[in-house]
Amino acid sequence: MNSFDKLIADARETAALAQIAGRLGWDQETMMPRGAARQRGAEMAAMESVLHARRSAPQVGEWLETAKAPDAAGRAQLREIRRAYARATRVPADLAKRIAQVTSEAQGKWAAARAAEDVAAFLPVLQEVVVLKREEGAALAAGGDLYDAMLQDYEPGTTAEQIGALFDAMRPRLVNLRAAVLDRPMPAGVSGSFDEATQMRLSQELATTFGYDLSRGRVDKAVHPFSSGSGDDVRITTRTSATDPFNCLYSTIHEVGHAAYEQGIDPAYALTPLGQGVSMGVHESQSRIYENQIGRGRAFTGWLYGRMRDLFGDFGISDADAFFAAVNRVQNGYIRTEADEVQYNLHIMLRFDLERALMAGDLQVSDLEAAWNDRFAADFGYAVDRPSNGCLQDVHWSVGLFGYFPTYALGNVYAGCLFQALREAVPDLDARLAQGDTSSATTWLRENVQRHGGLILPRDLIRQASGVEPSEQPLLAYLDDKFGALYGL
Amino acid sequence: MNSFDKLIADARETAALAQIAGRLGWDQETMMPRGAARQRGAEMAAMESVLHARRSAPQVGEWLETAKAPDAAGRAQLREIRRAYARATRVPADLAKRIAQVTSEAQGKWAAARAAEDVAAFLPVLQEVVVLKREEGAALAAGGDLYDAMLQDYEPGTTAEQIGALFDAMRPRLVNLRAAVLDRPMPAGVSGSFDEATQMRLSQELATTFGYDLSRGRVDKAVHPFSSGSGDDVRITTRTSATDPFNCLYSTIHEVGHAAYEQGIDPAYALTPLGQGVSMGVHESQSRIYENQIGRGRAFTGWLYGRMRDLFGDFGISDADAFFAAVNRVQNGYIRTEADEVQYNLHIMLRFDLERALMAGDLQVSDLEAAWNDRFAADFGYAVDRPSNGCLQDVHWSVGLFGYFPTYALGNVYAGCLFQALREAVPDLDARLAQGDTSSATTWLRENVQRHGGLILPRDLIRQASGVEPSEQPLLAYLDDKFGALYGL
Repeated sequence: MNSFDKLIADARETAALAQIAGRLGWDQETMMPRGAARQRGAEMAAMESVLHARRSAPQVGEWLETAKAPDAAGRAQLREIRRAYARATRVPADLAKRIAQVTSEAQGKWAAARAAEDVAAFLPVLQEVVVLKREEGAALAAGGDLYDAMLQDYEPGTTAEQIGALFDAMRPRLVNLRAAVLDRPMPAGVSGSFDEATQMRLSQELATTFGYDLSRGRVDKAVHPFSSGSGDDVRITTRTSATDPFNCLYSTIHEVGHAAYEQGIDPAYALTPLGQGVSMGVHESQSRIYENQIGRGRAFTGWLYGRMRDLFGDFGISDADAFFAAVNRVQNGYIRTEADEVQYNLHIMLRFDLERALMAGDLQVSDLEAAWNDRFAADFGYAVDRPSNGCLQDVHWSVGLFGYFPTYALGNVYAGCLFQALREAVPDLDARLAQGDTSSATTWLRENVQRHGGLILPRDLIRQASGVEPSEQPLLAYLDDKFGALYGL
Repeated sequence: MNSFDKLIADARETAALAQIAGRLGWDQETMMPRGAARQRGAEMAAMESVLHARRSAPQVGEWLETAKAPDAAGRAQLREIRRAYARATRVPADLAKRIAQVTSEAQGKWAAARAAEDVAAFLPVLQEVVVLKREEGAALAAGGDLYDAMLQDYEPGTTAEQIGALFDAMRPRLVNLRAAVLDRPMPAGVSGSFDEATQMRLSQELATTFGYDLSRGRVDKAVHPFSSGSGDDVRITTRTSATDPFNCLYSTIHEVGHAAYEQGIDPAYALTPLGQGVSMGVHESQSRIYENQIGRGRAFTGWLYGRMRDLFGDFGISDADAFFAAVNRVQNGYIRTEADEVQYNLHIMLRFDLERALMAGDLQVSDLEAAWNDRFAADFGYAVDRPSNGCLQDVHWSVGLFGYFPTYALGNVYAGCLFQALREAVPDLDARLAQGDTSSATTWLRENVQRHGGLILPRDLIRQASGVEPSEQPLLAYLDDKFGALYGL
């Protein structure tokens, strides 16, 4: 075998082990006995240590020096192996270990501080995390921009400048749209109690409706909805609330978007570095277009309204138009994860600007809460009432996830570009969605996005699939149209 | 760190990874989507390759040369590490790979041959397996006895000669007991249909009754009952049949015996080579004493009868004595896994003698079916009617498990020794069991057997716990008493 073939054989084994580590994570959230937590920690640490040793093996570095890729896919494989190798070798082992320890401790302190509404109890350990992550970022950047280096873990090939330009263009338009919408009367919501077993059955039906292959996946309940795994074993979770069926149903559709991406990748890439979604942003573009552009669109909600009436009887919504308005209600709120399409990206931009400033050293941890609250008041027009509704609401920073937040909004932007192209490619899209037939949409997404796996870098992929340079314009036009019509703007 | 400490640190990580591999096996039988089988094969192979590389690492050999254990537990740790190292290094990698390939193929051919009742379709690949396993045995034996070397994988420190002596002493007595029992009228069984969800609820209750800690385990349904994992994450499976509730209930009690052993090990040994049951035979001694000596005894069945009447109403059994007889019915049958306490060991002895002869080269694969059928007729008094009831009934040989079968009967022998000692140690045992209180029994077993994990080799452990040299006599006396009384012999 030549060095390229050796690298691929080695990477296949590493990819298989990474799948196992992912499945352990799924098990932990769904099946693990509660008394097994400490032991599971040791098992995960052993697995991470194996993965790190493989990714940083000197032999991989030697093979990379002489490996010649036979084709474009091979070059992309090398690109991914090289990135993983650089990531694993640039960060000193001591620093990686220290980050693992401190973030583990910080996550506990964050949860306690959030419960106690006590920002001061969290800041010292957050300070430690920030110092360590900046050190890690500097090691990864190797002279380049620290935050850009961090972004590569989540959004390879994308810079903070590119993201910042998108966000800066979006922000004033979203602030205005939000204010205009909230100035109008709020549509009615659903009322009554919704049998949770029936929600789960409808969940499975929706998963299949959106093309999720249950012979290569499964749906379970968990505290937080997520999708896990690649290729032939991609599992999702959802949750139920007796009074809010949309939580379960739209969580499921969202996770099916992630799962369909992983299930839709060319099987030739299975258990290789290309055998998974290329970035968090592109991943989120799939989950969001399934959930929002398709799942919350007027055509599909018409079908869903009928199914829900069949299963739940009367739930206080008189017709499909009122149902469409109910699933797209825009309301004041502090919490990112509960935000609607109009406001969600504003939550992200706030975090992006703050974490970028923290990493650049332009914002001190001690000033974080004030900066958060100022920015929130500026964009949302009212004050944060308590830390759990403000800078303590998300787990991300406590566990060292800097550079992750912007991918959520990037996903929305990409979903906007893709949906514009999808509409052009499938002229009768609405007629099909109105029948509960998503196949033309999901097939188009599989062909144009999902099947490529890690082959094409995010911005190139979106440009190729949508035919336009990635831009905030399609998303903003879509939001203006949809919410303009819904709220009579 | 000195070389002993380095070995232990390394072994801890290996043990953690082995737990992960075990949990993947659990997942495969309970949760895995059916379309994930091929991918799972690649994942398991990657995991096995990691484990093999760790166990056979030259560094382990070097550490072993200079490691000094500080105490008895340390010496036992070294003994286990040395055995795993010898196992991993003595078998050439090519041979191990070939065995993995051929047994994978053989398992498929066995299943097809069994379905088609076609022994001839299975024998060529079984011949390949036998040749390869003999080669492996010779490598492991390093000049010693080939079958003894294989036994070490399942029953360390035990020889075929020791087992053969036990079995030879048992066989005529069991053949006679069987004939005498079957000469008497057969007691009535249960009748009617038993709600399967209620069976599963009673299953969970029984698991708890027998001391299974559900905060560190869980019960699921699977095609085959099994127990999986060690320490704080020990999961069991069971199965249900609407017409035969005993299948579910006694499978559960059996697996709880295995699980309680793993859960009962001294936490100081967690994720080390001593942090699991010392052998298959001792494991089976726990599952069998839970299931049979306790679970099918007159005292406990009196309590169980009441619980089943509460849950299922009338099921054709008039009183506790008749219930005791119903759960201990002795019937003709071909299948090992369905056999009662009187006949089970005869099924094992047949397999032990045949596989020992196969490994010794004294029996040819082409003569296996005839040898099986002759022996079956001699011990059971009637002819095997078809291969799926004869030499094709078990998966073991197809997957290369030679040396495994005898541990089932060895477990029964050990259970006999332990139960004799338990009765002496807990004079009011029956009065407690009649109340559904197994705690004095399970506590005694935990203290005397389970907590030691891999510390003490099987025969030494049984001798120490039971106060007698391991012997078939207690088991035979127990069977004579129990079935003599039940069948009025």
